[in-house]
Amino acid sequence: MSHRVRIDEDRARQAFESALAEHTQAFGTFFLARFLGLEISYGDDCCIVEFETADFMFNPQGSLHGGVIVTAMDISMGHLLNHLQGPGMTLELKTQFVRAVRGGRVKAVGKAIRRGAGISFMGSTFFDADGELAAFATSTWKSLARPVPGASEERR
Amino acid sequence: MSHRVRIDEDRARQAFESALAEHTQAFGTFFLARFLGLEISYGDDCCIVEFETADFMFNPQGSLHGGVIVTAMDISMGHLLNHLQGPGMTLELKTQFVRAVRGGRVKAVGKAIRRGAGISFMGSTFFDADGELAAFATSTWKSLARPVPGASEERR
Amino acid sequence: MSHRVRIDEDRARQAFESALAEHTQAFGTFFLARFLGLEISYGDDCCIVEFETADFMFNPQGSLHGGVIVTAMDISMGHLLNHLQGPGMTLELKTQFVRAVRGGRVKAVGKAIRRGAGISFMGSTFFDADGELAAFATSTWKSLARPVPGASEERR
Amino acid sequence: MSHRVRIDEDRARQAFESALAEHTQAFGTFFLARFLGLEISYGDDCCIVEFETADFMFNPQGSLHGGVIVTAMDISMGHLLNHLQGPGMTLELKTQFVRAVRGGRVKAVGKAIRRGAGISFMGSTFFDADGELAAFATSTWKSLARPVPGASEERR
Repeated sequence: MSHRVRIDEDRARQAFESALAEHTQAFGTFFLARFLGLEISYGDDCCIVEFETADFMFNPQGSLHGGVIVTAMDISMGHLLNHLQGPGMTLELKTQFVRAVRGGRVKAVGKAIRRGAGISFMGSTFFDADGELAAFATSTWKSLARPVPGASEERR
Repeated sequence: MSHRVRIDEDRARQAFESALAEHTQAFGTFFLARFLGLEISYGDDCCIVEFETADFMFNPQGSLHGGVIVTAMDISMGHLLNHLQGPGMTLELKTQFVRAVRGGRVKAVGKAIRRGAGISFMGSTFFDADGELAAFATSTWKSLARPVPGASEERR
Repeated sequence: MSHRVRIDEDRARQAFESALAEHTQAFGTFFLARFLGLEISYGDDCCIVEFETADFMFNPQGSLHGGVIVTAMDISMGHLLNHLQGPGMTLELKTQFVRAVRGGRVKAVGKAIRRGAGISFMGSTFFDADGELAAFATSTWKSLARPVPGASEERR
Repeated sequence: MSHRVRIDEDRARQAFESALAEHTQAFGTFFLARFLGLEISYGDDCCIVEFETADFMFNPQGSLHGGVIVTAMDISMGHLLNHLQGPGMTLELKTQFVRAVRGGRVKAVGKAIRRGAGISFMGSTFFDADGELAAFATSTWKSLARPVPGASEERR
């Protein structure tokens, strides 16, 4: 396994400048999501988070950092919950890492396993550039009483 | 809960430029760790990952994003394992989020629960700026046969 | 919620005596599985563990004890792995409890998420008597080098 | 690994008859807990669940079944929560299995990580007969509004 000791600086700078210019701290558009280049969309019962991996997201072993994978899956579940019934907070999250991701366009698909007014159970599946299962997560969410900025807009 | 719709751009830019200048894709110094400003040190049987939170790391609700918390805890465990016996990969990672983190200097402390030549069990605890428990994680690791760049240097 | 302070003794005794008479400490037939009345069968890519609940399996709140649910799901995954490639041990297991189970005939369905020669990821889903999702689990398994009694017979 | 194909019938029968005679479906004394011979006691901030293992609790590999370990840990956490503030239900439970348990007197120690009026985080540690760590669990609980039979008595 040979990999670069330095990341692609132009690629990282482009991600950073775009995020700085475009972000607003609301669902779908907050800085961290923009910096990772997350494209967030909704299906009938799912939230899809797609992005192009870049080496600034990599771990020392040269593959996509587990923290980035968890972040994308967490967002796919939290955004879906917000989309369907309003914002919530993650009580707990378990992720299983099935396969290292070496690059390309990847995707997290969040689904509701069982939603409730108070507690909801959500799941997410992460696919690599070949469409192979790379990771999956299950989590427990507590709904928040008060809406957050951007939540109401998004749910319209 | 009122919070800024835009992040502190100067703070984010400083983090980005420093990371770009200083990083090298090895344990302790890879870009993602540098961008988050992680200060990684080792105790007798633990790895401490400290950093100053900034609003570019926040979720739409105005608190530290769970993905960032998981990333720091994952690094505290992976770096400790690497420090003690060489690099490994996370098979799975479970995180419990106990308290929202609103800012300040925070800390993840990684420990080995039981290490083996093949499989190791690691844990991490995340403390907020007041030293209160904010999150904790347990995880299962598989040791990698081959060393990665930076691993041997660090273990000297 | 009103429930009996004493369990149905005849039902418990029947389960116990049958298990004592029929058991043999091998996959599919070990005492604990027989005592719970587990009926274990295999589909193309799954292991189905069905049983009739009884109040001797209940918690103080009058519903099926979480430990019994976990046991049935663990067996559905461990037996499937054994059926497909030989015995393994559970490294870790996470269960999410979605709905209390009050009685009737229930079912755990174990599936392989990704199997490997060394490490495998398995999942299980638990359905109540109405076929509603009651719990689900994900787990990580390590394959054992040596076969255990009953394993070879079952895989024929 | 050689082990008996039949369990110790006298031992199992003794456990069964005692449980049938002594049980009452309340915290501390419900049938399943009595059948496993669980001795439940409370420290200042913990619940200790001790028992003598027997081969009727074993898996086909001849060690204590993971489901039994989970059951004991679940009870150590649920009973502690009930003892401290009233009954709750497990939303999710994660267990890591560190070491196989081959026999002897074992112990689960439940602790509260963070308790709340609605949601609580609990942990449990399982020790084998030599006092070595054999498993550990973390879990999320939702408190129930209404007391259950036996709960009020125990908390007096």
